[in-house]
Amino acid sequence: MNEVLRQIRNRKSVRVFENREIPDEIKEEIIKAAFEAPTAGAMQLYSILDITDEYLKEQLSIACDNQPFIAKAPLVLVFLADYQRWYDSYTFFECNPRKPGEGDILLACADAIIAAQNTVVAAESLGVGSCYIGDILENCETVRDLLDLPDYVLPIAMVVYGYPAGSQKNRKKPTRFEKEYIVFENKYRRFTKEEHEKMHSIRNQKEGLTNIDIMEYIKKRCNLKYMSDFALEMNRSAKEYLDKFRS
Amino acid sequence: MNEVLRQIRNRKSVRVFENREIPDEIKEEIIKAAFEAPTAGAMQLYSILDITDEYLKEQLSIACDNQPFIAKAPLVLVFLADYQRWYDSYTFFECNPRKPGEGDILLACADAIIAAQNTVVAAESLGVGSCYIGDILENCETVRDLLDLPDYVLPIAMVVYGYPAGSQKNRKKPTRFEKEYIVFENKYRRFTKEEHEKMHSIRNQKEGLTNIDIMEYIKKRCNLKYMSDFALEMNRSAKEYLDKFRS
Repeated sequence: MNEVLRQIRNRKSVRVFENREIPDEIKEEIIKAAFEAPTAGAMQLYSILDITDEYLKEQLSIACDNQPFIAKAPLVLVFLADYQRWYDSYTFFECNPRKPGEGDILLACADAIIAAQNTVVAAESLGVGSCYIGDILENCETVRDLLDLPDYVLPIAMVVYGYPAGSQKNRKKPTRFEKEYIVFENKYRRFTKEEHEKMHSIRNQKEGLTNIDIMEYIKKRCNLKYMSDFALEMNRSAKEYLDKFRS
Repeated sequence: MNEVLRQIRNRKSVRVFENREIPDEIKEEIIKAAFEAPTAGAMQLYSILDITDEYLKEQLSIACDNQPFIAKAPLVLVFLADYQRWYDSYTFFECNPRKPGEGDILLACADAIIAAQNTVVAAESLGVGSCYIGDILENCETVRDLLDLPDYVLPIAMVVYGYPAGSQKNRKKPTRFEKEYIVFENKYRRFTKEEHEKMHSIRNQKEGLTNIDIMEYIKKRCNLKYMSDFALEMNRSAKEYLDKFRS
C-alpha cells in the first residue's frame, strides 16, 4: 500500500483540536490543494471563505446546529458553490445571460466539494485533522447575512481544521457498510427488508454492537438524523437557496 | 513538499487512455478509497455504479454530450447521491418517514463527491488517470432508464479512469485564477467590471493567450459553456431530478 492510500485509509474526522495555531505556510498548502483540484471547464465554480473573525466563527457555530467545537477550530473554511462570479462576468461583458439554473448549481456544488476534499487530503498529509460541517446548509437567511452571500452562491460545505487532540487519535473510525450494499455492477439495485436488516446488522456487529433490535435501531437513527429539527431546518434552508436557481 | 501534495499538484484530467485494462486489485484499491472518505453521520449517502457493460458505456457516452472517449475508458464509475437506501430502511422499519427533501439530496451530493474525489486521488497514486464527466447530469430520463435509478437517487458525477496515453502526460494543466479572486477573508466579495477583466486577463496571459479581446473571449466562453445545448439540457434534466425532492 502506497503512502497516499495509507493516509486515505487512516484519515478520520477530528472534532477536538489542540490549542495550537496552524502556521501560515501550512494553511497556504491546504488552500493551494483546492486550486489543484479538477474543475468543470476550468471554470472554478466555487469560492472559499477563510473565516478568521472570532465573532463570525461563533455565529457560524451557532447557525450550524450549535456545535461549539467549530468556533474552537484554528482554521475554518466555507466552500461555496459559486455561479455568481461567472454570471457577473457574462453580464459585464454583455452576453445577456439567462439566470443560472439547477444544473449549473449542482455542477458548482460538485466543483466546490472536489476542491474541499483535496484540502482535506492535503491537510491529513501535513498532520492536520479536519471535519466536514454539512450543517452550513442550515439557516439560509442568517448565513447569507453573516457571509454577505449573493443569490447565485450556495454554501455546500464548511470544513474545520486543526491539530488532533490526543483523544481523537485513538478514536475508532466508524465502520462502513459492506461493499455489496454500496457498489453495483451496471444498474442500481434496491434491497428487500431482509437485505436491509442484514446490511445494518453486519455493520453493527463490526462496531461491537451486538444483540441490537434493528427496528429500534433504525427508528432511533431516523429520529436523530432525519426527523430531527436540524434535518428539517436543513431542508427548509436548502430549498431557499435552490429557489434562486429555479427555472 | 510531501508526496501527497506533489501528487495533488501534478494530477490533471486525462481523456485519452492506453489500451490497457486496470487490474482487478488496482480497481479494488480505487473503489476502497471511496469507502474511506468522510461521510455525513456515517450514513454513506451514495452508491457507486461500476459500468462494465460495453453497450451501457456507449449509451452513457452518447447521453453525456456525445463524448466517445468515455466508452473507451477501462473503468467507468457513476457516483449517485443516494437517499433511496436510507429512505427504504426507514420505510421497512416503520419509521413513517417524510419524503427526502432538498437539504437531504444536497448533503448526499456532497457525500458522493467526497467519495469520488478520494478515488481520483487514490487512482493518481496508482498511476491511473481520471476525468470527471459532469454531463451525467444530462438526459435524466435516458440515464434513469439505462441505470434503473429510483426517484431518490441523483447521478452527481461520472468518473472515467485509465492509464494516460503519452500525449496526455505532456499536456499542460489549465491555469487557475489568481487566489485573490477565489478566496475571501470572512465575507464574500463581488468584483467590478475592471476586476473581472483583470481576473480573466491574468489567467489568459499565464495560458500564453496574449492580445485577447476580453469581451470577445467571455462571449465565446458564454456560448460554449453556458448558452450551449448541453448546458440547457443539463439544467432541464437537473430540474427533473430535483423535482422529486421538492418539499
